[in-house]
Amino acid sequence: MGDPGGIGPEVVLKAITTRTLSATIEPVLVGDYAVWEETARHLGLNRRFSETPRRGSIAVAITSELEPRHRVPGPARNAASAAARGEAAYKAILEGVRLVQAGEASALVTAPINKAHLNAAGHDFPGHTELLAKLAGDVPVRMMMVGGELRVVLVTTHVAIAQVPQRLNRESVLQTIVLTVQALRRQFGITAPRLAVCGLNPHAGESGLFGDEEARVIAPAVRAACRRGLHVLGPLAADGVFAHAGNDGSYDAVVCMYHDQGLAPFKFVHFADGVNFTVGLPFVRTSPDHGTAFDVAGSGQADARSMAAALRLAAQLSGSGEVRSP
Amino acid sequence: MGDPGGIGPEVVLKAITTRTLSATIEPVLVGDYAVWEETARHLGLNRRFSETPRRGSIAVAITSELEPRHRVPGPARNAASAAARGEAAYKAILEGVRLVQAGEASALVTAPINKAHLNAAGHDFPGHTELLAKLAGDVPVRMMMVGGELRVVLVTTHVAIAQVPQRLNRESVLQTIVLTVQALRRQFGITAPRLAVCGLNPHAGESGLFGDEEARVIAPAVRAACRRGLHVLGPLAADGVFAHAGNDGSYDAVVCMYHDQGLAPFKFVHFADGVNFTVGLPFVRTSPDHGTAFDVAGSGQADARSMAAALRLAAQLSGSGEVRSP
Repeated sequence: MGDPGGIGPEVVLKAITTRTLSATIEPVLVGDYAVWEETARHLGLNRRFSETPRRGSIAVAITSELEPRHRVPGPARNAASAAARGEAAYKAILEGVRLVQAGEASALVTAPINKAHLNAAGHDFPGHTELLAKLAGDVPVRMMMVGGELRVVLVTTHVAIAQVPQRLNRESVLQTIVLTVQALRRQFGITAPRLAVCGLNPHAGESGLFGDEEARVIAPAVRAACRRGLHVLGPLAADGVFAHAGNDGSYDAVVCMYHDQGLAPFKFVHFADGVNFTVGLPFVRTSPDHGTAFDVAGSGQADARSMAAALRLAAQLSGSGEVRSP
Repeated sequence: MGDPGGIGPEVVLKAITTRTLSATIEPVLVGDYAVWEETARHLGLNRRFSETPRRGSIAVAITSELEPRHRVPGPARNAASAAARGEAAYKAILEGVRLVQAGEASALVTAPINKAHLNAAGHDFPGHTELLAKLAGDVPVRMMMVGGELRVVLVTTHVAIAQVPQRLNRESVLQTIVLTVQALRRQFGITAPRLAVCGLNPHAGESGLFGDEEARVIAPAVRAACRRGLHVLGPLAADGVFAHAGNDGSYDAVVCMYHDQGLAPFKFVHFADGVNFTVGLPFVRTSPDHGTAFDVAGSGQADARSMAAALRLAAQLSGSGEVRSP
C-alpha cells in the first residue's frame, strides 16, 4: 500500500488491472481494506476485494483500519494523521515481508512511503530499503535501478557530494560488487555477470591528475573482486561507460560511486519506466521509481508505468529462467 | 589539424568529403601539408590540396613542415617528436584563430590535441579551450556539449569530486548562466533561452538534508539571473532534469555543477555524435567529443561521426537564422 494518502494505491490498482499483468500475476494487496476499496471506486474500477482468496476477487491482507479522516489523499493535515498513516504504511511493510518470508508470496513490491509520516509513527528509518534490510536480519543491501537499457547499482546514496569521497572505502565498493554479482546470478539468472565499476572523479581521475580515490579505493576493490574470479572492469570514466552498458551488452550492470552518477544517466533514458530493485535481500523486492506525489494523489492522473514495470520485474525475477540482460 | 599523429586529420578528411558536408561547407585545412596529403592518400581519397584557393582542390593553410619521422601516426616515440608535434598543433591553432578573427573563416573546428605534446613544446595549457580563451583576449569560457537531444554546460570541468564543492561559488554559477544565455541568443539564435540549473547534491540537497551548496551558492546565483530577466529554473535534482531537457523542449540547456553530472547523461545518449562547443568566445568554435585515439590512428578505422557533427554545427551556427532547439 505504501502511504495511504499517496499515489501508491492508485498506481497499484491501475497496474494490476492492465491486461498483461492481470493475466500473469496473482496479487495480494497489503494494507487498509477501505483504502483499496475507495481508490478502486474512485478510479471507476468495477472490481471486488476479498480478505480470503475468492474467484473473481482481488485478495487483500488487511493490516490497518484507518479512520476516514486519515484516508484523505494528499499530505497529512495534522500530526495525528501523519502518525496514523505512517503506522499503517509500516504495518503493511511488516506483513509484506512476512508473506514473502513465509513463502505465501513470491515477491514483494512496495508502493511509496513518506519518511516523515513513518518517523511520526515512531519508526525511524531513512526509507523502505533500510527498514527491509533490518527486517531481513540486518543484511547489507544496495539500491539497483533496472530498466530495459541499463542496470545501475549505487555504493552511496543520499549523501552530500562533499561527503562522498570520505564515505567510499574498499570494503563498501567490494561489497557492492559482490552483492550485485550474487543478485544477478541468483535473482536475474545471469550465470557469469559482467560488471563495470565507475571511477569517482572525471575521466576516472586521469591517472591521478584529479583525485586519488581511484588508485586508493576503487582499483583495489576491483582487483580483489577479480581475484575472486568475478568479471569486473574498472575504475572506468563515468561519462563513457553507460553507452557500453546498454543493449550492446558489454556489462550486465554498472556500479556507481554516488547517487547522481548512476541516476542522472539512468533516469534520462528511463524516466517513467525505471524500477528500483534491492540487492542483498533474501527475497525479490521491487518498487517504482517515484515518491508519494501528494500533489497528484486523489486526482486519478498518476502515471502507473513505473509500478507496472516494478510488478513485471518482480514477476520475472520470482519465476525461473534467465532474465534477458539489458 | 590537431596532433598530427592522432586521428584528427583522418576524421576531418572523412567528414569533409561526405556528400552532405562537401556540398555545404568550404573548408580551409590548417596545419602540415604533408600530414593532410599523406592521410588522404592512406585513406584512398583521390583529392588534391592547394595552398591557394583553386577549383576542385581543398584549401590548406600551411603552418608547419614536419619531418617524416614526426608524422608517424600513434603516440610520439621520443621527446623530440612530442615537442615537434606539439608545436605543429599549436601553430595550427594560432592560424585557425587568426582566420576566424580576420573574418577569413566563419567558424573554427578543432581536431584533438595531446596536452603532453603541447607542454613538451613549451605551451602550458590544460587544453584547447583554455588556449583559445587566452588567444581571444582572456575571456571567460565554459564547455558546452551539444547533441540533438540535449545541451549541457559545465560550471567546473577537470576537478576532483572532493574539490568540486569548494570550487563552486555564486559568481562562477551566475557567470555560467549568463555566458550560456548569451551564446544561445547570439550564436544559436534562440531569442529567449530557458535554462535548467542542477543542484550539486542528490535530490538537489532535499531542502538541506544533504549539503548546503544549493541554498548557499546555487539558489542565490539563479535568483540573481532571474532578477536580470533571464529564464532560469533551479537548483533542480540532476537525476530528474535531463528527461525534461530533451525533445520535450522545457529547457534549451542544462547547467551542470561538475563534469560527470552533465557528461554521463549526455554521452549515454550522444556517445558518437556529441559536439563540444565553447561558450564565451567571440567566434564559433566546435570540436568532436573524443581525443587523439593514438591506438587507432593510422588504421583508417576512426569514427568520423563526431567530427562530422562538429562541422555541421559550426556551419549551422555561423550561418544565419535560428538553430532548431534540441
